[in-house]
Amino acid sequence: MQLNEAELPALARGCAVLGTGGGGAVETAVPSAMQAIRRHGPVPVVRLDELGDDDLIVPLSGIGAPTVGHEMLMSLEQPQRLCEEIERILGRRPAAIMAAEIGGSNGVEPVAWAAQVGLPLLDADGMGRAFPEVQMVSMNVAGLPLDLVVMSDVVGNVATLRPVSAVWAERLARAVCVASGASSLLSSYVMTAGQARGGLIEGSVSAAMDIGRSVEGATDPLAALRDCLGACELIHGKIVDVERRTGGGFVHGSVVVQGTDSCRGRMLRVELQNENLLALEDGEILASVPDLITIVDTQTAGAISTEMLRFGQRVSVLAWSCDPLWRTPRGLEIAGPAAFGYDIAYRPVEELAHVGR
Amino acid sequence: MQLNEAELPALARGCAVLGTGGGGAVETAVPSAMQAIRRHGPVPVVRLDELGDDDLIVPLSGIGAPTVGHEMLMSLEQPQRLCEEIERILGRRPAAIMAAEIGGSNGVEPVAWAAQVGLPLLDADGMGRAFPEVQMVSMNVAGLPLDLVVMSDVVGNVATLRPVSAVWAERLARAVCVASGASSLLSSYVMTAGQARGGLIEGSVSAAMDIGRSVEGATDPLAALRDCLGACELIHGKIVDVERRTGGGFVHGSVVVQGTDSCRGRMLRVELQNENLLALEDGEILASVPDLITIVDTQTAGAISTEMLRFGQRVSVLAWSCDPLWRTPRGLEIAGPAAFGYDIAYRPVEELAHVGR
Repeated sequence: MQLNEAELPALARGCAVLGTGGGGAVETAVPSAMQAIRRHGPVPVVRLDELGDDDLIVPLSGIGAPTVGHEMLMSLEQPQRLCEEIERILGRRPAAIMAAEIGGSNGVEPVAWAAQVGLPLLDADGMGRAFPEVQMVSMNVAGLPLDLVVMSDVVGNVATLRPVSAVWAERLARAVCVASGASSLLSSYVMTAGQARGGLIEGSVSAAMDIGRSVEGATDPLAALRDCLGACELIHGKIVDVERRTGGGFVHGSVVVQGTDSCRGRMLRVELQNENLLALEDGEILASVPDLITIVDTQTAGAISTEMLRFGQRVSVLAWSCDPLWRTPRGLEIAGPAAFGYDIAYRPVEELAHVGR
Repeated sequence: MQLNEAELPALARGCAVLGTGGGGAVETAVPSAMQAIRRHGPVPVVRLDELGDDDLIVPLSGIGAPTVGHEMLMSLEQPQRLCEEIERILGRRPAAIMAAEIGGSNGVEPVAWAAQVGLPLLDADGMGRAFPEVQMVSMNVAGLPLDLVVMSDVVGNVATLRPVSAVWAERLARAVCVASGASSLLSSYVMTAGQARGGLIEGSVSAAMDIGRSVEGATDPLAALRDCLGACELIHGKIVDVERRTGGGFVHGSVVVQGTDSCRGRMLRVELQNENLLALEDGEILASVPDLITIVDTQTAGAISTEMLRFGQRVSVLAWSCDPLWRTPRGLEIAGPAAFGYDIAYRPVEELAHVGR
């Protein structure tokens, strides 16, 4: 499979839906991916089983507050400098680039990065969605060591961290990111294909493209998207309150949706930290991380990222189940409600949210 | 020359005087240096001209707020991990450890670090005193590139930075340091002896020991110290005000000395950022960075570090001239008053302060 210019809009739409509000705004990622493909040609997309056991996979993602990334574009040299540093450290050339997270711009930008460094893109990612912290990846759930982090910023600085734990990786990487202006390119869990087997969410790039294509030409885009995702609609209505605070490299906040039509009289609150974490109604939880909660435009079914939420928007809040890997005890420990400071027991969205409600 | 246990107190006294209030409290550094010498034997001290052009010199220093370093001791593995990382990056074993700054505990701790990693200590440093920021070193004045910074914290994390400039090195290293708990071991300007020639303050370790010995058994320690340093006394009196704020990895503040005896009726204020930067009387500058300003106990002539200043202490404030390298235009640009945010023209202490005043 090859990714060409014409397929980027579908990929971007899918990544926006999987971003659950975060992962960076896809709008900013598409032009640079298009430009990179125009300059360097289509990007080959390879499956994990097509790689040899010794082939080196470089997971890449942007790190930082999306509201900053939105205004500060990546430099063309960032992925190149980062891959050169990895080659210098590990003594061999990487074989493939992987999106660390498929959600948001972090799912689209790797297309540009792969084109720029002349490597194929792996049809996989480390989340199957978006998460705000570097340790919240499937490779961590699978027990791969996080002993090397390489970062490259827009100024040209390169930082290599050898952390003692995933929590220290996050703490140090976040500090470097904030010092670099709250936006940086980061690679962690550089691994061989042999190490990666069983530890990735495979097929993520294809899945994002399927989601993006599902609404194309649909007479009822929202229904088409719900079917494709297997999602339930928690509410549809009007955004009546948006609260966002940017600090320490994160965006925290919440958004309140007032029901309209069949949802009249209801109020739903979505809490967020870069991504949508929790959907609440009358103090009752309707869906929670690691399950996916995405706010889409009711008319077009286009996902609305955290930083684009505005008072008065007509939206539907969709929720659907995460990859089974995230529902394991170790998965929940790493990215369940408690990992975000919520003292609640996780319950799967299909038990909490009543479809058709 | 070899450094043994018996010489450590003199070295420590000298380093405290050269620390101009900062560089960490020597009291905490002596026991670990003694222990390291007891375990590994005396530390050979070599001159730069004894090293071959290709011999690798590793400058080391602690980075962080002294009030934190005071409470958080270094781990024994920190220098070992740091040297291993440098060997991994540069492909060869270092030949000598150097104190990045001779002032304060940073001048004493390298004795322990050299003993622990089994390398000689170079009789030189990068300041001839103490300064609060990583780019304020003679190697920078000499134009050596700051393209590699290696850090190692007490937790076991190792960070390697490839900054685009000295200012970025400082910014990123400080961020990593703060994330590590405001205290870290840092190496920058790793260089060959060939590169180092002309770019170091040579003889610093010997000089510190001479200063420390000058007061030993003296009937008038203060006079002996003044003679050894070629310093003038700006004031002697009582500390009547101390202000200190720790934040962002620094200590900022000021101390006010009220004159007694022949200085009765006078008030002197010393402003500090980890180190003493400026001595002012009635709005007039009596001495300023990069010249050295040290507050000593009037009786014993022992230097008092920033974090040990207390109301009521009887002190003398000494000031003397810095190494000529710091008075060059590039030296003043890097560590003159303007580098600390003071909008004043630098004037040498021997022009400003009237000896015997």
